[in-house]
Amino acid sequence: MRHVLGARCVKCGKEYDAVPGLTNCSCGGILDIVYDYDLIRSRLTKAQLAERQDHTMWRYRELLPVEENTPPTPLRVGWSPLYQAPRLASQLGLGKLYVKDDGQNPTASLKDRASAMAVAKALEAGAQVIACSSTGNAASSLAGNAAAAGLKTYIFVPSRAPKGKVAQLLTFGATVISVQGSYEETFELSKQAIDRWGWYNRNAAINPYLSEGKKTVALEIMEQLDWQVPDYVAISVGDGCTIAGLWKGLKDLYAIGFIDRLPRLISVQAEGCCPINRAIAENEPWHPMEENTLADSIAVGVPRNADKALMAIRESNGIVVNVSDQEILDAQQLLGRTCGVFGEPAGVTGTAGVRKLCQQGVLGCDDTVVSVVTGNGLKDVANAIRACGEPISIPSDMNQLLDAFAARGIQPE
Amino acid sequence: MRHVLGARCVKCGKEYDAVPGLTNCSCGGILDIVYDYDLIRSRLTKAQLAERQDHTMWRYRELLPVEENTPPTPLRVGWSPLYQAPRLASQLGLGKLYVKDDGQNPTASLKDRASAMAVAKALEAGAQVIACSSTGNAASSLAGNAAAAGLKTYIFVPSRAPKGKVAQLLTFGATVISVQGSYEETFELSKQAIDRWGWYNRNAAINPYLSEGKKTVALEIMEQLDWQVPDYVAISVGDGCTIAGLWKGLKDLYAIGFIDRLPRLISVQAEGCCPINRAIAENEPWHPMEENTLADSIAVGVPRNADKALMAIRESNGIVVNVSDQEILDAQQLLGRTCGVFGEPAGVTGTAGVRKLCQQGVLGCDDTVVSVVTGNGLKDVANAIRACGEPISIPSDMNQLLDAFAARGIQPE
Repeated sequence: MRHVLGARCVKCGKEYDAVPGLTNCSCGGILDIVYDYDLIRSRLTKAQLAERQDHTMWRYRELLPVEENTPPTPLRVGWSPLYQAPRLASQLGLGKLYVKDDGQNPTASLKDRASAMAVAKALEAGAQVIACSSTGNAASSLAGNAAAAGLKTYIFVPSRAPKGKVAQLLTFGATVISVQGSYEETFELSKQAIDRWGWYNRNAAINPYLSEGKKTVALEIMEQLDWQVPDYVAISVGDGCTIAGLWKGLKDLYAIGFIDRLPRLISVQAEGCCPINRAIAENEPWHPMEENTLADSIAVGVPRNADKALMAIRESNGIVVNVSDQEILDAQQLLGRTCGVFGEPAGVTGTAGVRKLCQQGVLGCDDTVVSVVTGNGLKDVANAIRACGEPISIPSDMNQLLDAFAARGIQPE
Repeated sequence: MRHVLGARCVKCGKEYDAVPGLTNCSCGGILDIVYDYDLIRSRLTKAQLAERQDHTMWRYRELLPVEENTPPTPLRVGWSPLYQAPRLASQLGLGKLYVKDDGQNPTASLKDRASAMAVAKALEAGAQVIACSSTGNAASSLAGNAAAAGLKTYIFVPSRAPKGKVAQLLTFGATVISVQGSYEETFELSKQAIDRWGWYNRNAAINPYLSEGKKTVALEIMEQLDWQVPDYVAISVGDGCTIAGLWKGLKDLYAIGFIDRLPRLISVQAEGCCPINRAIAENEPWHPMEENTLADSIAVGVPRNADKALMAIRESNGIVVNVSDQEILDAQQLLGRTCGVFGEPAGVTGTAGVRKLCQQGVLGCDDTVVSVVTGNGLKDVANAIRACGEPISIPSDMNQLLDAFAARGIQPE
């Protein structure tokens, strides 16, 4: 890994060698992987990338903290579609809108990017077992990516995790511990177990390589936009790792000269659980909050990666916006109807934030925005059905169909 | 469409012009699209394909029945991953096994290939509304692909359709009619409604273009295998359209000289609903059956495309095998644990059949098999959870974790 110089604590600046089993700094701070951008510049050009037929996150290997001989992980992670959304942009009054559908990953969320990285690093470390705690998506992505690579997993999820995610975990053969408590309590139990048994740790706020996997979403967005930098990139925020990874990817591209400016981040949280956005809005340190939102993946009252997330939002001169659960469900339907994209509640929270900022006049017809959908709506169908209502239910009878249409004011054409 | 000569009835041989609104032959038979393979040979080479950066089904445009200026549909359909599955192959005693995960499509099933084609043809026809009946996946794929293209949909599903699929339909803004009855009754009501209002018809057994969309799964498998023909391709069978499409794609490639032989098809149905396989096994015409299986997508007692399916299986010197619901759920877990692939019950039925044929000694260590997984397990989590049991549920307490592990004989390492 000549292109990786090491790791540096974002809190105290202490430096570490980039060994596969890196965790937090001795001061408790989170580490950040440091690259030799001059070397990377000499190894990677835009033209080389354009030629590559590897359409997974591993196409960006020169920018990833893995050994040269580390094999790509088995599942096809990354290179999710970036859709231009002209109808939705015009409904919102936005200049240009792109939707990055990261629900189109093997286990149906952006977290596959981090889990594939965890698997690659666990293999480098010679580990046979990986563990994590998660609100659900990190868990199912780890279970799937590890199963494909022949690794065993122990997974800790809060008991509120939706059935879709639990079904994935069990099918992938993980040992699943459903913790009767908050995400914070789930995290604590996983930490104790990982310490006790020495499992490879996939907790994104502890293992600094995971953000590096997540950053590939930013690398892809920019390559898919042919390196034309949008004004804003909007994303939902829970633990803080994802927005931190997004920002890291953008900064990497800036550092190697692939883009000539940086977009502003839009950090979107649920009104019922927004400790990171509150800290930005009030310019205060963050404080824990209740986990009061149906968007389970971002219901994180004690964000484990607040430091990196806050730095990312501030460095980018970012915008923070909180949305209600109803606004989240509205965004889910809006994306479905106008783009054919079905996101889970936390997955569409970024889009809900964009919509709100348009309504507030913060964003408008001069702006180009990328909205990242972080997970597939099939993970949590109960909430989707709650939002949409039930279908027309009738026997196979034309007269009853006519009556049902008439009763609902549907005039077929 | 100079490369398309027309359409021919598979029953009576009557020929038709390939207009966008084609339906069945006047004799009731299903039409098959006929190509000018000499022209296609002159237009498309393997080397050209290898250069293409379009990783969707539209990379095979020269082999698809669309006008040259018909735009590709908005969602990223096709080019799903083909995974080599060495651990599963060795567990089964197979020579080589590949898993084509077609659950990795925008709405999470192979049906997206047909629905994208329907949308393309509807746009050619100037239609604003598309309708279909479906056990669920055709419906949700049509709703999603149509929404992305700005078209309106009317969708008829049997009331047994799993919640995941209904949630997709509603989110994509379809008008959904849930018919209290069998798939057959659902189909009949949709037919009456389509006739009455003149909607563009996406019923795969009526619209001959849809198989042409589905055939892209075969084109991809062969390109992903670098044109090395496997001995067998296994797939689950319901209505019959998918296996017919698969076969059409293979024959196309043979006709233009891209492959030098044809694989044998393995048609897998559920024991509780196997009219097509029964017809092959007994060498009789097919007869209706009950729809008695939890694999909802292939619970089709009156297969609408039996003719094409039977021809495909017979032409390929295919094998038929029926599996129980328990064998389907076992295959679901096997694929999850060994490959990190989570398929819905009907999606993994092909793999269940491969496993059964290995147990019976029909397939073995000399055989190379491709197993197509046709839909994502997130569509139907209730059955997956039923198969896997529940996770360990405890408070955040190490002692209780130790007790729970001990009680289940789990020895962490």
